[in-house]
Amino acid sequence: MFKRIGIIAKEGDARIREALDSLVDFLQRRDLEILLDQTSLELLGERPGIGAAGAFPDSSELIIAVGGDGTLLSAAHMVSEREIRVLGINLGRLGFLADITPKEIPGTLAAILDGHYQEERRSLLAYQITRDGKVLQQDDAVNDVVLQKWNIARLIGFDTYIDGTFVHSQRSDGMIVATPTGSTAYALSGGGPILHPSLDAMVLVPICPHTLTNRPIVVDGNSRIEMVMGTRDIDHARLTCDGNIKQELIAGDRVLVHKSERSIHLIHPAGHNHFATLRAKLRWGTDLC
Amino acid sequence: MFKRIGIIAKEGDARIREALDSLVDFLQRRDLEILLDQTSLELLGERPGIGAAGAFPDSSELIIAVGGDGTLLSAAHMVSEREIRVLGINLGRLGFLADITPKEIPGTLAAILDGHYQEERRSLLAYQITRDGKVLQQDDAVNDVVLQKWNIARLIGFDTYIDGTFVHSQRSDGMIVATPTGSTAYALSGGGPILHPSLDAMVLVPICPHTLTNRPIVVDGNSRIEMVMGTRDIDHARLTCDGNIKQELIAGDRVLVHKSERSIHLIHPAGHNHFATLRAKLRWGTDLC
Amino acid sequence: MFKRIGIIAKEGDARIREALDSLVDFLQRRDLEILLDQTSLELLGERPGIGAAGAFPDSSELIIAVGGDGTLLSAAHMVSEREIRVLGINLGRLGFLADITPKEIPGTLAAILDGHYQEERRSLLAYQITRDGKVLQQDDAVNDVVLQKWNIARLIGFDTYIDGTFVHSQRSDGMIVATPTGSTAYALSGGGPILHPSLDAMVLVPICPHTLTNRPIVVDGNSRIEMVMGTRDIDHARLTCDGNIKQELIAGDRVLVHKSERSIHLIHPAGHNHFATLRAKLRWGTDLC
Amino acid sequence: MFKRIGIIAKEGDARIREALDSLVDFLQRRDLEILLDQTSLELLGERPGIGAAGAFPDSSELIIAVGGDGTLLSAAHMVSEREIRVLGINLGRLGFLADITPKEIPGTLAAILDGHYQEERRSLLAYQITRDGKVLQQDDAVNDVVLQKWNIARLIGFDTYIDGTFVHSQRSDGMIVATPTGSTAYALSGGGPILHPSLDAMVLVPICPHTLTNRPIVVDGNSRIEMVMGTRDIDHARLTCDGNIKQELIAGDRVLVHKSERSIHLIHPAGHNHFATLRAKLRWGTDLC
Repeated sequence: MFKRIGIIAKEGDARIREALDSLVDFLQRRDLEILLDQTSLELLGERPGIGAAGAFPDSSELIIAVGGDGTLLSAAHMVSEREIRVLGINLGRLGFLADITPKEIPGTLAAILDGHYQEERRSLLAYQITRDGKVLQQDDAVNDVVLQKWNIARLIGFDTYIDGTFVHSQRSDGMIVATPTGSTAYALSGGGPILHPSLDAMVLVPICPHTLTNRPIVVDGNSRIEMVMGTRDIDHARLTCDGNIKQELIAGDRVLVHKSERSIHLIHPAGHNHFATLRAKLRWGTDLC
Repeated sequence: MFKRIGIIAKEGDARIREALDSLVDFLQRRDLEILLDQTSLELLGERPGIGAAGAFPDSSELIIAVGGDGTLLSAAHMVSEREIRVLGINLGRLGFLADITPKEIPGTLAAILDGHYQEERRSLLAYQITRDGKVLQQDDAVNDVVLQKWNIARLIGFDTYIDGTFVHSQRSDGMIVATPTGSTAYALSGGGPILHPSLDAMVLVPICPHTLTNRPIVVDGNSRIEMVMGTRDIDHARLTCDGNIKQELIAGDRVLVHKSERSIHLIHPAGHNHFATLRAKLRWGTDLC
Repeated sequence: MFKRIGIIAKEGDARIREALDSLVDFLQRRDLEILLDQTSLELLGERPGIGAAGAFPDSSELIIAVGGDGTLLSAAHMVSEREIRVLGINLGRLGFLADITPKEIPGTLAAILDGHYQEERRSLLAYQITRDGKVLQQDDAVNDVVLQKWNIARLIGFDTYIDGTFVHSQRSDGMIVATPTGSTAYALSGGGPILHPSLDAMVLVPICPHTLTNRPIVVDGNSRIEMVMGTRDIDHARLTCDGNIKQELIAGDRVLVHKSERSIHLIHPAGHNHFATLRAKLRWGTDLC
Repeated sequence: MFKRIGIIAKEGDARIREALDSLVDFLQRRDLEILLDQTSLELLGERPGIGAAGAFPDSSELIIAVGGDGTLLSAAHMVSEREIRVLGINLGRLGFLADITPKEIPGTLAAILDGHYQEERRSLLAYQITRDGKVLQQDDAVNDVVLQKWNIARLIGFDTYIDGTFVHSQRSDGMIVATPTGSTAYALSGGGPILHPSLDAMVLVPICPHTLTNRPIVVDGNSRIEMVMGTRDIDHARLTCDGNIKQELIAGDRVLVHKSERSIHLIHPAGHNHFATLRAKLRWGTDLC
C-alpha cells in the first residue's frame, strides 16, 4: 500500500486549489504522509503535518499529479527514481494519461488506495546529444524527442541511423521519435500511427518531409536511433523533448535516442480501458460525416 | 549446409526458363539434391537426377523461389513446415524479399551455399474465420489478412477487438492486418507505417475509413485481433490473404488474426541491408521535388 | 414563389411517415400543389388534392427530399430538369446537404416559402463510358464518379488524361472523381481535400495507390477527365456513381468525366453557413486530443 | 518579340558563370539588349554593350533566371511590373518552373526568341499584415504565404475566415496558403493536393494540426482569406513568404491573403507539358514498390 504520497500541481487558479484542498483533506483523513511540490505548497499554504517541498519527490511511493496530462509529464521529469508510480487527476478535458476527476476523489481514489487499481508500465526514451565526441546533454522523455527546424522558413537536413545502419538522408521540418505514450500526442498530428501502450516500440515520424515516401517507421523498443545534423546554420535546428526546448543543434551534432532505464507506472482505477479513452478522445464512437 | 534444395518458379516465359536452367546447372555441379515444383518441372522438362514434384516441398532444406516477391509468397503457402528457409531470385524489379538476380547465381549463390549468408526470421499471421461457432477456414499469411468490401460501392461495417477488448465500430472499405513484411505492401498504399522486420508486431490499417480519426494502430505481435462483421448483405465482404480471395463473409462472422506458429527464414547474401532495399524501392536517396 | 412542390421520401419507418404527414399538412394549409414520388405515396396513403406520382417530378418548382443527404442525391437522379431546386429535410444526423429538421417545418420552411432563403448552385458531373467507340452508358453524378476494383484482391491499372494530355498510368484500388459537393463524401475518406462549394473544380483522388506520390489533383471545373482501363480481366473493375453500381469495365473502356449541363440549386434557410456545417460534421470546434 | 532581356542569376560558382557566359554570348550575337542584375554583373564582370544593373529590371520585356526554381522566385520578388515574363534556365535538378538546361540555349532558346514558345500565366498571392488597424507589411508570393510557429516546441492558435465567414479555430504548427504553383512545393510536403496551374484557386494546408479532421481546403482564386493570431507569446509565430521570413506576429495580428494584381507569365519551350514535369519530379512513371 502507498504510505507516502507526493503531490504535484499545475500552476493555477481557484479550481486547482479547490481540487488540491479536497485531495489533501482526503489523504489526511486516511493518515497518509503527504509531500508537496513547490506549486502545491504555494497554492495550499502551509498545513500542519505536511512535509516541505524539499523532501519531495523521490521518497514518495505514489505521486498524484493534479492538473492534466501535462502535469503528469512534468512529474516524470522531476523524479529521478527508476520506477515512478503516478496517478493523474484531470481538471480539464479527458486526458490520455490522467483519468480521475476531482469528483471521483472520495470514491475512486479511496478504492485505489485500498489496492483496487491497475498498474500500467510506460517506457521512457533517453536521449544524448554529443558534439565533437562530448555529451552536451541528456535527459528522458515520456512522449517524444523532436529534432526540429528553428527560426527558419526552410527545411533542415539530417541523416538517420537505426542500430548503426544508415536509414536515409532527410530534408524536412524535423523528426519526431515517440514512445507508444507519445504516439497519440504530437506524432499523431504529424501523421504517425497509434502504438498500443503495451507494445515495446518507438516510432519515427518525419515532419513535412520533402520526399513524399518518407513515411513513419516503427522500430523495436530496444533499437538505438541516431540522427546526425547536416544543417550548417547556427540556430536553425533544436532538440525538444515533451514540448520543452532542450538544445540548439549544429552540423555534426549527434542525437542518440533509446529506451530509458526509467519507466512510469501509471496507476489507473480498476477497470481502466485504454481503447475507451481513445474512443472518447478521437471520437471513434461517432461517425464524423 | 543445405543438401536438398526445392525450387519454385513463377509461371512464365523464356526468361524464367533460362534462369531456372542456369540455377539447376549450378546446383547439379555442386552435387546437391534438387526438388522441383510443378511449374519448374514443366518449364525445364525432365532431367536426370532431379526428383519429381510430388516429393517436394516439405523435405527440402532450402527453397529457392525463381520469379519475384510473389513467387516467394506462394512458396510460403505451399510449404507446411514450421520453419521455412527461402531464398528469392528476382527476375523483375528489385523485390523487398527476393534479392538475388540471375546473374548473381554463380557468385552470390555459391557464397550462400558455402555458408556465407544472413538469415532473417519473418513471422506469419494465422487467421481463422468462424461462423456460428464453427471454424469455416484457416490459413497463414506472409503479408496481410484483409477484410474488404466486395461487389458494392458502399462501405462495410465491422467491430474490432484486440485481446478481447473492444476497439471500435468502423465503417470503411475494409481493414488490413499486416505483418512487418506486409507493412511495405498493400498496407503502405493504405496509409500505414513501415514496421521494421525485426519488430514483433502487427499493424491494423483501415481502408478509406468514414471516420477520419480511424488511424493505423500497431499492436504487439502476440495480440489476438478479432473483427466481427456487421454488414448484413450477402457477397458484400470478403477475407483475402496475401492477395488471394479466401472467404465470403456475412454478418456475425468472426475473423481472428494472430501470430502463426510457422515462420519464414529469408536467406539473404551476407551484407544484406533492409534499409538499402527500402531506399531503393521508395527512392529515399533521391529528392523528389 | 414555389407553387408546385414535389416530395421525395426515403423508404422508411414511422418516423419518415410522421415527418411526411406534417410536411403535407403544412403545405396543404398553404394551398400549394403537392406531387408525391412513389415512396411518399405509399407511406402516406392517398389524400385528397394530391397529384399522383406519375406527374412528378419534372414539373415541380421545388423538390423537398425527406430523409437525408442520400434522399437528396436520389432526387437529383430522378429529375431530368437542367436546374433542380431541392430542399432537404433531415431525419437522422446532420447532413451536408439536408439541413432542416422535421421540427423546423412550421417556422423555417414557412420562411423559405415566403421567400426568405438562400440558393446555392452545385454543379454535377456527367460521365460517358465508351467501348470500341460506342457510348455504353452516360449519366450525371452529384458527389462522385468512381472507377474501382471489383471482385478482386489485387490492384487495377488505368491511364488518366486531362484535357487530352496524359497524366499518368496508375495501379491502385481505383480513382474517385468528385465535385466540391462530393469532396466531403467518399473522396474525403480517400484522403482528398475539401473543395469549397463555390469553387468551379473537380478533384481526382486515387484510392490506395501503389505509387505513394500519386496525390489528389484538383482541376478546373471545365476540364475533361478521361480514364482508360488497362485491367484485362473481366469483372475486375466497375464504374460507380454516387454509390450506385453503373457499369462493369474491361480493358480499353474509356470513361470521360466532365461538368454536366444540369445543376442542383440547394435551398437553404436564410443565414445558412457551409462552414458551420463542416465544423459540426468534422467536429472542428472541439479539440480531439 | 523580346528585345530587352533582363538576366537574374543565382549567387554561385563556376557552373553558373559558365552558363551566364554562353547565355550572354548567345543574346549578343542576336543583337538583343541585355540588362544584368547585381549578381550576374559580378559573376560576368563588365562587358561592352551591357546595361548596368541599375536600369534593370522593370524595363526588360523578358527576364531569364539562371539557377533554378528559387532564382525564378527571386525574379518575381524583384520586379514590380504587373505582368512579368520569365524564363528559367535550370542548372541543377529538373525544376517545376525552370525547364531549360544550359545545353539547350542554342537550340531551344533560339526557337523561343523566334516566337516558338508557350506562355503560361501563374497567379500570385498578395498578403497584408495589419496590427491595431494599421498595415504593417504587404508583399506578393509566388508559392505560398505561411503562418508558422517560431522558436517554440508548442502549437500556435489562430482563427481562419474565408470571405468574412468564420471557418475554424485551429491549433497547429501553422497554416500554408498556396497558389497552384506552390501546391507542389511546401504545401505538398504538408499533405496538400496538387492544384493544376490553370485552376483559379488557392489551397489552405494546415501543418500538423491538433484536430485530425482539419484537412486541406481549396477555395476560389478570388477568395479573401484572413487569419487572426491567437497566440499571445511574443516571438512564437511568424509569417513567411516563398521561404523568406517576413514578420513576427503577435496576438490580434490579422493576415489577409488574396490574389495579387501581378502575375507571372512563364515562358516555356513549345510543346511544354506540365504533367510530364510532374511525372518526372514525382516519379509517377515508375512503380515505387
